[in-house]
Amino acid sequence: MSFELKILGSNSATPAYGRHHTAQLLRVKSHNFLIDCGEGTQIQLSRYKCKALRINHIFISHLHGDHYLGLMGLIFTMHLLQRKDDLFIYGQKGLQEIITTQLKYSDTSLNYKIHFHELQNDCSELLFEDKLLTVHSFPLNHRIACCGFLFKEKPKPIRLNKEKLPENISLAQIGDLKKGLDIIDDEGNVLYKNSDITLPPRKSRTYAYCSDTKYDESILPYISDADLLYHEATFLEEKAIWAEKTFHSTTTQAATIAKMAGVKHLLIGHYSARYKDLSPFLNEAKSVFENTSLATEGESTHVPE
Amino acid sequence: MSFELKILGSNSATPAYGRHHTAQLLRVKSHNFLIDCGEGTQIQLSRYKCKALRINHIFISHLHGDHYLGLMGLIFTMHLLQRKDDLFIYGQKGLQEIITTQLKYSDTSLNYKIHFHELQNDCSELLFEDKLLTVHSFPLNHRIACCGFLFKEKPKPIRLNKEKLPENISLAQIGDLKKGLDIIDDEGNVLYKNSDITLPPRKSRTYAYCSDTKYDESILPYISDADLLYHEATFLEEKAIWAEKTFHSTTTQAATIAKMAGVKHLLIGHYSARYKDLSPFLNEAKSVFENTSLATEGESTHVPE
Repeated sequence: MSFELKILGSNSATPAYGRHHTAQLLRVKSHNFLIDCGEGTQIQLSRYKCKALRINHIFISHLHGDHYLGLMGLIFTMHLLQRKDDLFIYGQKGLQEIITTQLKYSDTSLNYKIHFHELQNDCSELLFEDKLLTVHSFPLNHRIACCGFLFKEKPKPIRLNKEKLPENISLAQIGDLKKGLDIIDDEGNVLYKNSDITLPPRKSRTYAYCSDTKYDESILPYISDADLLYHEATFLEEKAIWAEKTFHSTTTQAATIAKMAGVKHLLIGHYSARYKDLSPFLNEAKSVFENTSLATEGESTHVPE
Repeated sequence: MSFELKILGSNSATPAYGRHHTAQLLRVKSHNFLIDCGEGTQIQLSRYKCKALRINHIFISHLHGDHYLGLMGLIFTMHLLQRKDDLFIYGQKGLQEIITTQLKYSDTSLNYKIHFHELQNDCSELLFEDKLLTVHSFPLNHRIACCGFLFKEKPKPIRLNKEKLPENISLAQIGDLKKGLDIIDDEGNVLYKNSDITLPPRKSRTYAYCSDTKYDESILPYISDADLLYHEATFLEEKAIWAEKTFHSTTTQAATIAKMAGVKHLLIGHYSARYKDLSPFLNEAKSVFENTSLATEGESTHVPE
């Protein structure tokens, strides 16, 4: 099953060097979760052949323009594309007012319904759940209220080992095997030991998104052991004081968080417009946490099962 | 003196085929007037090497997203670029609320002051005036309140013909020449006839911007004899009924307006996303009004004196 993150925007406050404001698309099976939606996201979606109408859930970390100013345009475009399905938007207090004010003045009555969920900022909160996965928010440490998001697949079922499965096995027995039970006869004797004819469940994967935040170890419990962590790294280490002042992080701070959290793979992004060449970002982060990549627009990171 | 219109965005409701939402930059001497500001305008400005901080006056025709959704991002970027100069924004009722609501929730106190001017929609109104030119609004016929804008250079002074100017002429006499007076001696005799030693004033140029509108001849008095007219042409003629229904215009309708208004040059744009190839737009419009061009992003139209 797919579990793939596509980067649509990678830059911070002002677009520069062909890099756009923050937006990411996480695809998990049939889900297309949009995470932040900077200005121009609808154009980036189109550029990378991602269908806007497949997005049903949009998570906005905070109300700085580089993280949400593409949302209104995307909402209008979904309307023009004759969207009918409900749209679920998770964002900070104020986002609903910003959207409904603009719908009012454009005299637009949408073809579809939007469900707004106002994020809490003092705790982790379950935002979404289905058979496949959960999405939780968790608080970040930024200048204004800001949340990270944790996408976590649920435990997966035991798999049947088709090469070892007896031919005469019944549906009821298959049900037992999937529950982890052995196959027993009427007298209670074990005919087949579960572990002999099954394979362990595929791995449940997690993606942790840490939008704008200063270095803060209090996020570690939320993101620990994530398969993939995105952590902002707005500045190189030389700008550590400025990062602290602006509630942002440096390369090595992001990498330190990744290392302490025991994640498998770190993506950094949200680059300051002052930097054209990003190779020092990668070098600095890798010096602390080797398995680091740069968030690069149009590129996807697939998390294997 | 320059009088040059640069197209930053040329498409209508949804971006398509590399075409962006409406935005134009009119440069008249040191003025950089931004006319409409669709999503991504700040990126287009950067792409075409136009400096955002040189823009002091922004004219927003109406509150459909494809005409203003880039404004908030541009305002934030001007702030981050340490703008100090006042910014003047002319727009429909609601625009100020949309902007101030977003400034509030992002906890942003701008480095500079914005002056909002709420457009009237039942008359033409003087929006801006200085020594060089005036800018008037005029009502258009769209689904929601919408204005066009007329940029008009003021009459220019009589020019001295340096080749014919007597060497012994005084400053006072030059003053008289510029007022159109002859040079006379103390007895009232004409020493030099004004027209013999001066040249006529350079031409005063006008640009008329007709944003979203259905075909409506009532705009003719406002735009008559314009040197350059932009008139929206969202659809080809085959979609005339749909144009009427959506309060937009077709190619031949735009060209008919240009012809009836006696303008010198017509630019058409605001193309529907249903069209990839724009050559039929040009052909249809030219069949009615020969001096027509397609609004093309990155291209400039210079109006000669």
